[in-house]
Amino acid sequence: MRFDGRQADELRSVHIETDYLKHPEGSVLIQVGDTKVICTASIEDRVPPFMRGSGKGWISAEYSMLPRATGQRNIRESSKGKVSGRTMEIQRLIGRALRAVVDLEVIGERTVWVDCDVIQADGGTRTASISGAFVALAIALNKLYEEKEWATFPVTDFLAATSVGIVPEHGPVLDLNYMEDSQAEVDMNVVMTGSNEFVELQGTGEEATFSIAELQQLLELAQTGITSLFAVQATALGEIAGRIGRKPEGEAE
Amino acid sequence: MRFDGRQADELRSVHIETDYLKHPEGSVLIQVGDTKVICTASIEDRVPPFMRGSGKGWISAEYSMLPRATGQRNIRESSKGKVSGRTMEIQRLIGRALRAVVDLEVIGERTVWVDCDVIQADGGTRTASISGAFVALAIALNKLYEEKEWATFPVTDFLAATSVGIVPEHGPVLDLNYMEDSQAEVDMNVVMTGSNEFVELQGTGEEATFSIAELQQLLELAQTGITSLFAVQATALGEIAGRIGRKPEGEAE
Amino acid sequence: MRFDGRQADELRSVHIETDYLKHPEGSVLIQVGDTKVICTASIEDRVPPFMRGSGKGWISAEYSMLPRATGQRNIRESSKGKVSGRTMEIQRLIGRALRAVVDLEVIGERTVWVDCDVIQADGGTRTASISGAFVALAIALNKLYEEKEWATFPVTDFLAATSVGIVPEHGPVLDLNYMEDSQAEVDMNVVMTGSNEFVELQGTGEEATFSIAELQQLLELAQTGITSLFAVQATALGEIAGRIGRKPEGEAE
Amino acid sequence: MRFDGRQADELRSVHIETDYLKHPEGSVLIQVGDTKVICTASIEDRVPPFMRGSGKGWISAEYSMLPRATGQRNIRESSKGKVSGRTMEIQRLIGRALRAVVDLEVIGERTVWVDCDVIQADGGTRTASISGAFVALAIALNKLYEEKEWATFPVTDFLAATSVGIVPEHGPVLDLNYMEDSQAEVDMNVVMTGSNEFVELQGTGEEATFSIAELQQLLELAQTGITSLFAVQATALGEIAGRIGRKPEGEAE
Amino acid sequence: MRFDGRQADELRSVHIETDYLKHPEGSVLIQVGDTKVICTASIEDRVPPFMRGSGKGWISAEYSMLPRATGQRNIRESSKGKVSGRTMEIQRLIGRALRAVVDLEVIGERTVWVDCDVIQADGGTRTASISGAFVALAIALNKLYEEKEWATFPVTDFLAATSVGIVPEHGPVLDLNYMEDSQAEVDMNVVMTGSNEFVELQGTGEEATFSIAELQQLLELAQTGITSLFAVQATALGEIAGRIGRKPEGEAE
Amino acid sequence: MRFDGRQADELRSVHIETDYLKHPEGSVLIQVGDTKVICTASIEDRVPPFMRGSGKGWISAEYSMLPRATGQRNIRESSKGKVSGRTMEIQRLIGRALRAVVDLEVIGERTVWVDCDVIQADGGTRTASISGAFVALAIALNKLYEEKEWATFPVTDFLAATSVGIVPEHGPVLDLNYMEDSQAEVDMNVVMTGSNEFVELQGTGEEATFSIAELQQLLELAQTGITSLFAVQATALGEIAGRIGRKPEGEAE
Repeated sequence: MRFDGRQADELRSVHIETDYLKHPEGSVLIQVGDTKVICTASIEDRVPPFMRGSGKGWISAEYSMLPRATGQRNIRESSKGKVSGRTMEIQRLIGRALRAVVDLEVIGERTVWVDCDVIQADGGTRTASISGAFVALAIALNKLYEEKEWATFPVTDFLAATSVGIVPEHGPVLDLNYMEDSQAEVDMNVVMTGSNEFVELQGTGEEATFSIAELQQLLELAQTGITSLFAVQATALGEIAGRIGRKPEGEAE
Repeated sequence: MRFDGRQADELRSVHIETDYLKHPEGSVLIQVGDTKVICTASIEDRVPPFMRGSGKGWISAEYSMLPRATGQRNIRESSKGKVSGRTMEIQRLIGRALRAVVDLEVIGERTVWVDCDVIQADGGTRTASISGAFVALAIALNKLYEEKEWATFPVTDFLAATSVGIVPEHGPVLDLNYMEDSQAEVDMNVVMTGSNEFVELQGTGEEATFSIAELQQLLELAQTGITSLFAVQATALGEIAGRIGRKPEGEAE
Repeated sequence: MRFDGRQADELRSVHIETDYLKHPEGSVLIQVGDTKVICTASIEDRVPPFMRGSGKGWISAEYSMLPRATGQRNIRESSKGKVSGRTMEIQRLIGRALRAVVDLEVIGERTVWVDCDVIQADGGTRTASISGAFVALAIALNKLYEEKEWATFPVTDFLAATSVGIVPEHGPVLDLNYMEDSQAEVDMNVVMTGSNEFVELQGTGEEATFSIAELQQLLELAQTGITSLFAVQATALGEIAGRIGRKPEGEAE
Repeated sequence: MRFDGRQADELRSVHIETDYLKHPEGSVLIQVGDTKVICTASIEDRVPPFMRGSGKGWISAEYSMLPRATGQRNIRESSKGKVSGRTMEIQRLIGRALRAVVDLEVIGERTVWVDCDVIQADGGTRTASISGAFVALAIALNKLYEEKEWATFPVTDFLAATSVGIVPEHGPVLDLNYMEDSQAEVDMNVVMTGSNEFVELQGTGEEATFSIAELQQLLELAQTGITSLFAVQATALGEIAGRIGRKPEGEAE
Repeated sequence: MRFDGRQADELRSVHIETDYLKHPEGSVLIQVGDTKVICTASIEDRVPPFMRGSGKGWISAEYSMLPRATGQRNIRESSKGKVSGRTMEIQRLIGRALRAVVDLEVIGERTVWVDCDVIQADGGTRTASISGAFVALAIALNKLYEEKEWATFPVTDFLAATSVGIVPEHGPVLDLNYMEDSQAEVDMNVVMTGSNEFVELQGTGEEATFSIAELQQLLELAQTGITSLFAVQATALGEIAGRIGRKPEGEAE
Repeated sequence: MRFDGRQADELRSVHIETDYLKHPEGSVLIQVGDTKVICTASIEDRVPPFMRGSGKGWISAEYSMLPRATGQRNIRESSKGKVSGRTMEIQRLIGRALRAVVDLEVIGERTVWVDCDVIQADGGTRTASISGAFVALAIALNKLYEEKEWATFPVTDFLAATSVGIVPEHGPVLDLNYMEDSQAEVDMNVVMTGSNEFVELQGTGEEATFSIAELQQLLELAQTGITSLFAVQATALGEIAGRIGRKPEGEAE
């Protein structure tokens, strides 16, 4: 039994509220236990310089925490005048993961800006950001899909993320909260698609190491959790869920 | 009749939800029409260098907007590596206003960090921040008051803020939303105390000017609005409201 | 009687020396008591990005202090690598105030850069900057007016600024010097036009508050002082003063 | 057969030259094919603020490329005034990996600064940095070990890293050079210890995904490569290699 | 005959006004032709970290130009957020030169901050800064000398600087103005002491070169000019001039 | 006899290895005693904004040290977020010196980026950078010369640099190593051409001064050293050396 009474393979309660803000093309509030993240997707009609003329779109992600999302207040990165290594690493991860399930040729020379702002943190903020951002992104791209009458829906598959880890006295567990995360000897973030494939796998021994057998156990836990996350995403997306991965008629998969 | 059907002297609907986040000593979500701001108050057991050894406390405010709080996405100030002039001006205003109703000697050498994060913007974000931050601050200071068994409650008066302005074809109006604000010829932010005194008055002709008679009209509208805001704050604060301005028994006012 | 022997409604001695520097299109040295500011106006034949294609001009102001303008040496903002909140607030104020009395359509897609560099500070540097910058601006725009043979002189009215405040044991006073400013309970900067209208009104209780009656007294003092400043400006401007607010013949006011 | 004639499970030729520079406590030039990295380890007799008073040491890594380490010249990060997200991610990875095989209590309140400067890049710079930095670190810590006559040698195990990936038309391959890396659909960096355990596993689908079967194949390739790297490290370290993981006599493993 | 009618070995007219500002311990306005620089010297009762505990003082110089000191307006370095290479080079030069004629042991652990702010530029701003800063520095140190009743006056010799150069069609000339400077093939800044020794010599071929014979001619011109500058400095300093280089009685030179 | 056994007029041993890196158009490793610098030259097919439309090329130099090039580790300038004054001064010196021996009209609107990265420092890094960069530059420009079949080889003369100085108890010496440099009373960097002309002369009294007679001695030492450096450069350049200063046939010198 874990600190909060969960089983080793049990996710915290997950809730996704769509259309959380009025201005963005797509927005959600995702809650994973006490972790709460506002994810928005904004469409911009141009791409970064390195993509110009490619005919393809881009997805760029930013991540931030409110200063008091955490137990101790953190200094704002805008006040410090620079973005921390941790933030940059998370931003790069979110963007890369989302680009794996979007057909960038369909969206053409547009950028989707994905913003993940953590308003309350209790572990797993980067994976909650990915799971929430996927829904905000699909909603925003659905607006373009309907408006532009594209033949193909540009989201090619579901995408969700969770953390797994090895916690002393508890062993391998799914979806670590802050207390577990701060004690974990091994910490792994897993991003998977609806087709049961990996997009990202980031496992770290925190002044510790892990064997191939332990890796196997962790990946099984992750897969269990991510399958449940897909169900929450599908419910939140409603009919948009049915368009994901759909090709125009007559086109071979 | 205004764009949204209000009378000239009518506030938008105002709602303050207390204890909105779990970590901060004080936190609220304030909604003024479609403007939504998370305000938190965090206690730190030391003061900035210029106050050390003074025996007095300090209140420091920070303000930020989520990139997509607005109709067009804004670049994060952390990405730009610097805080804009507008943000700094608002931060200084919020801190100065709150310090006017707190007895800094009572709180001793502590800093209260007030964070106002706009998650949705529709005009009046700085005044909503002040009105909400006052409640978060009072909640946080009440915790210290109870814990330290201070003789005096350190909040000496109520404090709220609103905007007034002169809008073409509508004349002087109270509590401008974004559409009104972008058309206004004169824009004024007013911060007042429960004793009906001014703390801040910032009136600006936007490529326009205003007469002393117009100033008089605007100040009356502001007073009306602020009186209503005090009532919403008092309800949100519950029994804490009764402690505001209370001196220890036997001490002359 | 005040510290320096002035009456409550008495300005310090004011002197404006025009054509102080050889390179700028307009330049003055303004002295208000011991406060000395070099104000220059420079014409650039393009506007900032947000004004391009508008057919209108722009006025942009910058403000700085020499490190040893003050009693204690201040670190240069260039050495710190960032501009302080106070500086940004003042820069925005100066620019906004000047734009209120210039017909930006007449000057076309040009920027006037106004630089206010305080070489000696003794209180009231931001208001002295506005009063001096107005003269430098009028001189620079007069050169363009003569060179381009514009039908309309683009400066539509006089503009000057002063500070007023409430000082313990002295009450409401006009034009505070540094010693008064550092003791003031209420501090107010007032910018007015030759037509006796307000452009900016920024009143602040410094850990204090003020009533509507006190506001009234302060505004009267400000009006007295600004009227005197207009006379000094008119003398400095000579025949250019007569062009201010002048419309082409046959055009209704 | 790969572009450069290697088998799928074949490392490029690896060479480690020790004591490459005269000033640092430990330094190597590691060459992995055409990738060349200077790795140095420097001892500082204090730890970062968050470790003070812990009695434990710290290892901090920095990574950089000469502007012309690559085919196209890159702008220096010092000229840009900020460190890129990619650089920060790599620096964090190197530091974390090295800390996993050092007993920080043995070294006491000291920091080992590890600097990895890529002078020529042809893919795999971050993994070459880890493999080389391990040797420089062991040399530097050996000096302290001998000088302080510590009972325990603080390096607890070997550590090396390599990349594996899936390249179109070639499938899973070991130790990708730049050309392979730029075409790879899946890219994975693996850091392992001499005990055959994982320290870091970072697998990324580059706008692609990978299955658990493919993961298995990639990990086997990585293990093969890392075993060979340990042999090169051991040769470079000479008698220091024999001290790694050695406990004082009489102490249970 | 030069553009402005001077002989090849003729300085522009030089004027030094002492006590130009009221706050600094020492201040001058130096004019060299149309070049005008405000130089101030401020005493701080501590030294930079690298001098602490040495028992010796330090002299630190900063240099800046008003944006409109020049024909074209320059962007402020505070707005750009960084100090240019040219500025840093000049600051280092001024500080180094002044330290050569001050006995840092006499002044003890104090820093003299020297600020040179160019308000109007017409060539030779760095050499005018040195010549003016020397006077401001001597005035400031004289105050300390009198207040502390030091046995030795800490300024050991006179110091002044000028520029010389080779201008097409005019050959070697002394004290270049802006027009000459922008055409010069060789540009040399020379800093000398009252004992006729060099402190700094910085000669640069501007996409050109110079022979040893030309160097000889340039140095003779520089010496002529600097001798004249000493006379202007001595007049400005009055009785302080007599203390320069003076040792306590009975102490061998 | 000097610390390392050299005569006063003796250079340290100098070695230049060409084509040190595989990517740059020109690259060398220059060793001057224990000072080692990697110098590269990269061609970019455009010029900085201030040269556009001039039909002429540009040479831009950057200089950096590895953190552990020195006895004590230095913080990276990329981590500090800004380039030091010393670095900027050296970068400007290197660029200026190289431009003096290149016909910028021949190379047309191209930039040559010269990067000097010190991997080991023992005094004289800036002069070693210039001597090495000259060779890397000539190699890179020779590639363009052959590829474009230019009539004129754009390098007009040889260029090398060394340091001279006055060291207590040793007097004037050539090519100071770190120990000598840190004790020197006078330090001078001299850059000369193959025609025996000066390009740069930077002499500094380090809290000391020097006479014209001493200057003369130092310049003679410098000339001796630079002549030897030309021989090493010529050997390293091989047949390219013969093209330097060569004009197309029939064109008068």
